[in-house]
Amino acid sequence: MSDNKPIIGITMGDAAGIGPEIIAKCILDHEVYDVCRPVVLGDGGIMARVLEWMETPTVLQTVTGPEESRYRPGTIDLLDMENLDVTKITPGILSEEAGGAAVEYVKKAVDLALAGRINATVSAPLNKEAMNRAGFHYQGHTELIGDLCGAARTGLVLISGSVHLLYGTGHVSLKEACNLVTEELVLERIHFIHDALMELGFTQPRIAVCALNPHAGDGGFLGTEEIDHIIPAIETAKRDGVKTTGPVTGETVWLRAKKGEFDGVLSMTHDQGNAGIKLLGFGPVITYQAGLPIIRTSVAHGTAFDIAGTLSADSSILKAAILFAVRQVHRREGLAD
Amino acid sequence: MSDNKPIIGITMGDAAGIGPEIIAKCILDHEVYDVCRPVVLGDGGIMARVLEWMETPTVLQTVTGPEESRYRPGTIDLLDMENLDVTKITPGILSEEAGGAAVEYVKKAVDLALAGRINATVSAPLNKEAMNRAGFHYQGHTELIGDLCGAARTGLVLISGSVHLLYGTGHVSLKEACNLVTEELVLERIHFIHDALMELGFTQPRIAVCALNPHAGDGGFLGTEEIDHIIPAIETAKRDGVKTTGPVTGETVWLRAKKGEFDGVLSMTHDQGNAGIKLLGFGPVITYQAGLPIIRTSVAHGTAFDIAGTLSADSSILKAAILFAVRQVHRREGLAD
Repeated sequence: MSDNKPIIGITMGDAAGIGPEIIAKCILDHEVYDVCRPVVLGDGGIMARVLEWMETPTVLQTVTGPEESRYRPGTIDLLDMENLDVTKITPGILSEEAGGAAVEYVKKAVDLALAGRINATVSAPLNKEAMNRAGFHYQGHTELIGDLCGAARTGLVLISGSVHLLYGTGHVSLKEACNLVTEELVLERIHFIHDALMELGFTQPRIAVCALNPHAGDGGFLGTEEIDHIIPAIETAKRDGVKTTGPVTGETVWLRAKKGEFDGVLSMTHDQGNAGIKLLGFGPVITYQAGLPIIRTSVAHGTAFDIAGTLSADSSILKAAILFAVRQVHRREGLAD
Repeated sequence: MSDNKPIIGITMGDAAGIGPEIIAKCILDHEVYDVCRPVVLGDGGIMARVLEWMETPTVLQTVTGPEESRYRPGTIDLLDMENLDVTKITPGILSEEAGGAAVEYVKKAVDLALAGRINATVSAPLNKEAMNRAGFHYQGHTELIGDLCGAARTGLVLISGSVHLLYGTGHVSLKEACNLVTEELVLERIHFIHDALMELGFTQPRIAVCALNPHAGDGGFLGTEEIDHIIPAIETAKRDGVKTTGPVTGETVWLRAKKGEFDGVLSMTHDQGNAGIKLLGFGPVITYQAGLPIIRTSVAHGTAFDIAGTLSADSSILKAAILFAVRQVHRREGLAD
C-alpha cells in the first residue's frame, strides 16, 4: 500500500442494474482517488463489458485482496468473484444469477471490513426481487448486512448535506403507517436516530419529530396520534436527555431543517421523509447504515433497470456515498488516536 | 377615477391578527400602486392604530365607495365599516367582535365585486374560531365567499410560481384521508383543478395526480388505493380529455413539478401538497378561489396571532396575492375585448 488513504470496498450490486456503470464512472473521477483507495468487489466479465461500452482506456486490474491493488488513477482494482456468465446478464433484465452474485459481493465486503482489510464498504444498488429469487430472503442490503455483522439494532439513515432522516414507518401502506405510529415505536425511533447521529460524531444532535396529521392534529381535531403517542414519546425522550423538538408539522419540518434548525428528522411516513429530503436542495441523498461494527454507506436509489445499459446513469450519488464514508473513516481514526 | 388600473378591494381580515399590518405595508409598497388602485375594506380605528404603531406619515383617507378614493402613493384609501371599538381589540387575543367584523368586510367586498365596482378582492386572513364564535358557521373564507356568490362548486387552489396545487383531502386526520380517497373523489378533484386552470387561462393544463401510498402502492404491495381508486379515476379523466399524469409518487411529484413538468398537482393529503409547494423555492404561496363569478385571491397563511402587534409580519405574500389578482383582471379583460 503506497499511502495511508482509506481503502473503500465498493460492491458492484446487481449486475443487470446501473451499479457497474456508476462504479466505473466514480473510479474514473479523480476526486475519488484524491481521497481514498477504491477496490471493487464484483464480477470481472461484467466490469470489463461496461468499460468496453464506455470506450475508456481504463485498465481493469484483477486482485485477490485489497493489499494487491495499485490504487492508481486510470486503473480499476477489482476483486474478481468470477460468479457470473456475462453472456447471460442483460442490462435491465431481472436475473436470479445477478441477484445471488450481488449477495456474494456484500458478504466478501463485510468479511474484509470486519477483518480490518478495508476501512469501509460502499454498496451499489442490488435488486431485492432478484436477491430473493436467488434464495436470499432479505428485505434488502440493510437486513443482509445487519445479519452478516450480527448487529442487534441496525437501520438506515438518509443523509443530504447536513440533514439526517430516519423513517418512523417505511415500506407499508399509508393506512398501515397510521396504525403503526405508537408511543413505543416513536420513542424507539427517536433513540435510534439520536444514537446514529452520535455514531456520526454529533455530541448533542437536535432531532425534529414529525407529526402524522395535518397541523399536528390541531389539538385532536385532525387526528389523535400526536396526543396519544407522539407527544408522550417526545416527553420521555426529553427526560432521557435527547434534544427533541416536536411534533413538527409535515408541511414545516423541511423548511426548518433547511434553515439549519435540526440535525436529524424523524418522519412518521416514508413519503413525508423522502419528499422533503429530496427537495431540500442540499445535494445527493445517500444512506448510512447505523448500528454496525463497520462503516457502510450506499446510494438512496435503486438499480434503475429502466436506464441500465444506456450509459446515462448519474454517478454523483455513489460518489457522495464514497466521500462520506471516507470522512467517517478519518473522523473515527482521529477519535481513536 | 384617474386611470384605468384595476381596483382591488382588500379586506382587513381579523383585526387582532396581522391583517391590518400587512395591508399597510403592502399599500406603502410602490409596486402595488404601480399596477393597481387598492382600497381597504375594514375598520378605520384599527387601521389608524397600526399606522401609528408603524410611525409612518401615511394619510388614511376614509371613503364611502371605491369611486371616491384618491389612489395615490402615501395614501391609504379605506372604506371604513366602523364596526369595531379599537380599545377592545388587542393583537393576538381572539375576539368575537373581530371575528364578526371580518365577515362584514368580506360581504362588502363581494357586493362591490359582483356590482363591478371593484375588479377583484384580496383577503387578509380571518380567524375561523373568532368568526364561528360570532355566529358565522363557516369553515373559512372559501365557504363564506362561495355562499355569498351563490357558487355551486368552488374551492381553493394554492399557487407558487408556475405550480398550482389542489388538495384531494384537506383538514382531516391522515387516517380519514386514506378512507376518503375514492375513485369518485379523485375524478371530481381532477376535473376541478383542470377547470380552475382553464379559468386561469391555461388551454391544456398538465395535471399530476399524486399517489397516496409509498412507491404508488408498488403494484398493491404497499396499499391498494392506487389500483382501486386513483388509477381508474385517471383513466376516466384521460378519456374526458384531461391531460393527466399519475399516480406520481409523493416523493417525486414536487421534483418533477420543479422541473416544469406540471401546471397542476392534485395531492391526496394536505401535507403531501403543502410540504412540497412550500419547499419548491418558487416564492410566496398564495391562494386563488376557483369557481366564482368574481376574482378573489388570498394569502395561504393564517392570522399569526403569535406575532400580531409586533410589526414583524411579512407582507410579501399578501403583495403576491394582490399582484396575481391584478394579472388575472388584465388577462380576463384582454379576453373580453
